[in-house]
Amino acid sequence: MEKKVWLLAVGMTAFALAPGCKPKGAQTAITGDAASKVYVAPGNHDEFYNIVSGGFNGQISVVGLPSGRVLKILPVFSVNPENGWGYSEESKPMLNTSHGFVPWDDLHHIAISTTNAEHDARWAFANANNTPRIARIDLNTFKTVEIIEIPNSAGNHSSPFITQNTEYVVAGTRFSVPVGDNQDVSIDSYKENFKGHISFIGVNPESGEMNLSFQIEAPPFNFDLARAGKNMSHGWFFFSTYNTEMAHTLLEVNASQKDKDFIMAINWKKAEEYVKAGKGTKKKASYVHNKWDEETHSATSTKIEEVLTLDPTVLKDIVYFIPCPKSPHGTDTDPTGEYIVGSGKLAAIIPVFSFTKMLAAIENKDFEGELNGMPVLKYESVLHGEVVKPGLGPLHTEFDGKGFAYTSMFVSSEIVKWNIETLEVVDRVPTYYSVGHLSIPGGPTGKPHGKYMVAYNKITKDRYLPTGPELAHSAQLYDISGDKMQLLLDFPTIGEPHYAEAFPASLIKDRQVKFYPIEKNMSPFALKGITDARVERKGNEIHVYMTSIRSNFRPDNIEGVNVGDEVYFHVTNLEQDWDVPHGFAIKGANTAELLIMPGETSTLKWVPDRAGVFPFYCTDFCSALHQEMQGYLRVSPKGTNTPLKFSTGDVE
Amino acid sequence: MEKKVWLLAVGMTAFALAPGCKPKGAQTAITGDAASKVYVAPGNHDEFYNIVSGGFNGQISVVGLPSGRVLKILPVFSVNPENGWGYSEESKPMLNTSHGFVPWDDLHHIAISTTNAEHDARWAFANANNTPRIARIDLNTFKTVEIIEIPNSAGNHSSPFITQNTEYVVAGTRFSVPVGDNQDVSIDSYKENFKGHISFIGVNPESGEMNLSFQIEAPPFNFDLARAGKNMSHGWFFFSTYNTEMAHTLLEVNASQKDKDFIMAINWKKAEEYVKAGKGTKKKASYVHNKWDEETHSATSTKIEEVLTLDPTVLKDIVYFIPCPKSPHGTDTDPTGEYIVGSGKLAAIIPVFSFTKMLAAIENKDFEGELNGMPVLKYESVLHGEVVKPGLGPLHTEFDGKGFAYTSMFVSSEIVKWNIETLEVVDRVPTYYSVGHLSIPGGPTGKPHGKYMVAYNKITKDRYLPTGPELAHSAQLYDISGDKMQLLLDFPTIGEPHYAEAFPASLIKDRQVKFYPIEKNMSPFALKGITDARVERKGNEIHVYMTSIRSNFRPDNIEGVNVGDEVYFHVTNLEQDWDVPHGFAIKGANTAELLIMPGETSTLKWVPDRAGVFPFYCTDFCSALHQEMQGYLRVSPKGTNTPLKFSTGDVE
Repeated sequence: MEKKVWLLAVGMTAFALAPGCKPKGAQTAITGDAASKVYVAPGNHDEFYNIVSGGFNGQISVVGLPSGRVLKILPVFSVNPENGWGYSEESKPMLNTSHGFVPWDDLHHIAISTTNAEHDARWAFANANNTPRIARIDLNTFKTVEIIEIPNSAGNHSSPFITQNTEYVVAGTRFSVPVGDNQDVSIDSYKENFKGHISFIGVNPESGEMNLSFQIEAPPFNFDLARAGKNMSHGWFFFSTYNTEMAHTLLEVNASQKDKDFIMAINWKKAEEYVKAGKGTKKKASYVHNKWDEETHSATSTKIEEVLTLDPTVLKDIVYFIPCPKSPHGTDTDPTGEYIVGSGKLAAIIPVFSFTKMLAAIENKDFEGELNGMPVLKYESVLHGEVVKPGLGPLHTEFDGKGFAYTSMFVSSEIVKWNIETLEVVDRVPTYYSVGHLSIPGGPTGKPHGKYMVAYNKITKDRYLPTGPELAHSAQLYDISGDKMQLLLDFPTIGEPHYAEAFPASLIKDRQVKFYPIEKNMSPFALKGITDARVERKGNEIHVYMTSIRSNFRPDNIEGVNVGDEVYFHVTNLEQDWDVPHGFAIKGANTAELLIMPGETSTLKWVPDRAGVFPFYCTDFCSALHQEMQGYLRVSPKGTNTPLKFSTGDVE
Repeated sequence: MEKKVWLLAVGMTAFALAPGCKPKGAQTAITGDAASKVYVAPGNHDEFYNIVSGGFNGQISVVGLPSGRVLKILPVFSVNPENGWGYSEESKPMLNTSHGFVPWDDLHHIAISTTNAEHDARWAFANANNTPRIARIDLNTFKTVEIIEIPNSAGNHSSPFITQNTEYVVAGTRFSVPVGDNQDVSIDSYKENFKGHISFIGVNPESGEMNLSFQIEAPPFNFDLARAGKNMSHGWFFFSTYNTEMAHTLLEVNASQKDKDFIMAINWKKAEEYVKAGKGTKKKASYVHNKWDEETHSATSTKIEEVLTLDPTVLKDIVYFIPCPKSPHGTDTDPTGEYIVGSGKLAAIIPVFSFTKMLAAIENKDFEGELNGMPVLKYESVLHGEVVKPGLGPLHTEFDGKGFAYTSMFVSSEIVKWNIETLEVVDRVPTYYSVGHLSIPGGPTGKPHGKYMVAYNKITKDRYLPTGPELAHSAQLYDISGDKMQLLLDFPTIGEPHYAEAFPASLIKDRQVKFYPIEKNMSPFALKGITDARVERKGNEIHVYMTSIRSNFRPDNIEGVNVGDEVYFHVTNLEQDWDVPHGFAIKGANTAELLIMPGETSTLKWVPDRAGVFPFYCTDFCSALHQEMQGYLRVSPKGTNTPLKFSTGDVE
């Protein structure tokens, strides 16, 4: 028996190795107009913002479509020495977690806020996969303004997914883990001691502020991608699950045994009612909630010790399982909300479920049994139909709003377009290579824009000039305005994009913040003009209240600091114009730089460990006399009794 | 008097504020073929590699031309959580300095290795501006393989510049600073106690390995960009200087007093002779030399305590000063080596000096006086001529190999093309906005390719869809194959590009390393196959010898580790194919991930501070069963006496 299973394992490996092979089928012809379709002439703007996850770089890339140009790398979960994210005193609390400062995470998915299932693009939400967290990015400033940790989770891959009015951001744990007081348990006791959790994080409709409203307990499966119901299915949520075998070693083989795993359907409106009715249980938990304040330009981190939990084995009508072939990577709902598409990465077909049929099956108790005390619906009773021979390795489906679905096929490296009603495959194009997610502007919402589609590919190999063993990941842009998909452009990406969302630029481009009004700067260290510049000693703390404006720092010469003093450079950028940041760095400090936006105050801390004279300078080329924007800090040996001295700009 | 100077200061500020204004002159027409000129169809490759400094991000971007696509972000001086640079045990020593680990620097300039003044593109050199260092990047692997620190320097802006056979990489200090035993001196004693230094770093012609050969003492000026002589001027070096006023406060005003600063001409062949003749003085210094070993896939950091110094006030014939208007930002030499161009950022003309005339003036002792004991040549005696009315704020000049020079004009936001012989301006185009450096493929060498030119602009404002207060820096691509420059494309960049070099892709694309042969992996922690996977305890150190191959880690379940143990995950990627990295991250660790190339071994260290079960997983989407590539580490409380236990892949 073991031999047979090992053969299966070998077969699996061969299957897994397939990526990188050129897909069969004729290469899509590049028609002569592709160049003009993607060309955005100098001075003109792209039509769509594409907000792209950075995967293992922990950041977000903002890309313009159709040009494929990277407009910004936006730091979220990883330190960014470039602009001091995670290094300035103000930003450090943003990367705090229940187990201290963490300099990195793995950001997989994006959710753009919606109203009535249409993008309003007020905020982008993003997940941290490794240390489970959700971040909120303000799309008026393109800044990460909130990060909330998720307790009882491990590997927050299955998030963030939002309900149609951004009532909740929802997250499922990828790994089940022991929870509660004794987490030091044998890994062999997986089935008894490990638990899954689904988290519902409420979003304040005005401010966007998040709070962990409740968690739903779940069996020790691995949870994967999900979608909220929308329009007719508003009020429901659909999570894909894998490893419903509940294996805990060599999952490659042991979690690929069953022909069907499940989509977990959650009636979250019902769950909300139970919460209001006091049916939840408060449990001990430990997580942090970090907030950025745009007025003080600084972050705070708060520890929280409790979470409200719902038990669906007791509250019987909030969770139903729909059988779904095989090891699904994701679940998607079409713009009407009627159809629920399962993408089983080891499945040979794509099952499409009907929300109407699901409700009827629940009504009729059309169950094939129970799973850990929760009902399992009959596959056939919920099924709208199957897309047959779609390709190998269906992974993710987006929609064009014209009645078609587009499913990425990881193993056969292609995208398949099919009719949602008839389930007929109407077109297919190859990808280079091993496509992961797709992104159509508005594609996951009730109102797709259906003009372009981007494929985020997992294997790059020979697509660009080679750059050694480590290559950029690659994206491909397709025109989907006609009957047939047309490949327009290959473009490399930043980090390891998983998912992305795109929306029309017109939604947000006129509400962009260009600089921060200096009169509204409420930082306790802010200066309103150059004459306020000064240096103060408080015990062994030195506070340098510094201004930066083209082309000088004040003060620019500082003496009277001793080895071992804690020196805080509080730098206020007095500029009041767009795109005039100043940078600040000092030789000898074991930290990064500051990059200070107009009207903002940022603080760099350094504890000098040796005597000498240390130049500081503006790191961002700001003017013709940028190179003259410098100063010196003199550090004397410990115990030197020199009074503080500083110059604020003398003409010699 | 003071009032007058203040008025000057105000004028200067207005001058400095000019950037961002739209330049006068007709906008270059975008002809219909621009789109097709920059379009690289899917599957096709760019024609040139453009190796671009990342400025305040401390990294290098590899860009393809003419598409402007970013092919890779290559970590150099800043930590890169994305691939573990600065976080893996193997890479940490690369970011060591004489004052410990530094997570960031400011990388301004690139030099691509040359033979006979032509790009051979074996290595790229790059400077760290804040903590003075030079890095060497292997262009067969696109990996940073060496970093050497520079003592007696502060603000290593004026580097790296190479001699025509890459004999030396040369670096001038931007800031003069106190050196020697007592560096705790008053900033007011600048003229007496502060010193400048120019460093000559020898490069091994076979291995590329660097060593600090000698330093030349210099007056306390600020040093700026430089070029080696080439072809007929081979053996000389030309550094621009500013703040020859030797001011130390409000440099914006105080270092803009003199109408002329200097180009410092160094006869380095002569200096080399003095070194061989034992005329140098060994002085105490403290700096580190970090090397990456491609066989063990790990770095070492060595401390060095001595440097050889030459005093040009004694060795009279190695340094000559050429007067140069005004506050020059750079010096460039034309492909023949005869012409030396000074770019005075506050100058109204561009002076072009003649190497032949310089030699004659030296021969004839045609001096206008001495400066700190070194001869100053007469301006008129060395001058070939002046380019008149070139624009405002000349910054940098490159060459097309067809007799023309291209100078960027920061203040008037334009590029001016002029004839090197006749000094006649033959074309000018606007830039958007405030252009810094230019890059023409081969442009700084004896053999420019002269097809494209990239302008790296310092102000972006409205060129792209807005992304809040913080914007990407912008580049513009011009076709320079005809008489008139033609603007083809705007593209955003990564970090804050200063300088870049470009060369034909054919030079290196066929010698790229695609993966590391596992049999040559000499890491002491390397495994040759999955059966070698194991866990060992040595006191409180736990060594996990782990393999990664699609789609599993071995071991995947580990128990018997206690809180406070030092856990080392030594992960070997057993793949032997291009573009199949595996990542490794564990929940709960306060560090980044590892990204391990095929055939490589990398180590992540974690000291668990709490009990529990912590999942680890592959962070780089590697196969259809990537999501199954996971494992668990159980951590028990301190003092728990559980024996080590690990699974190496059991079928359940």
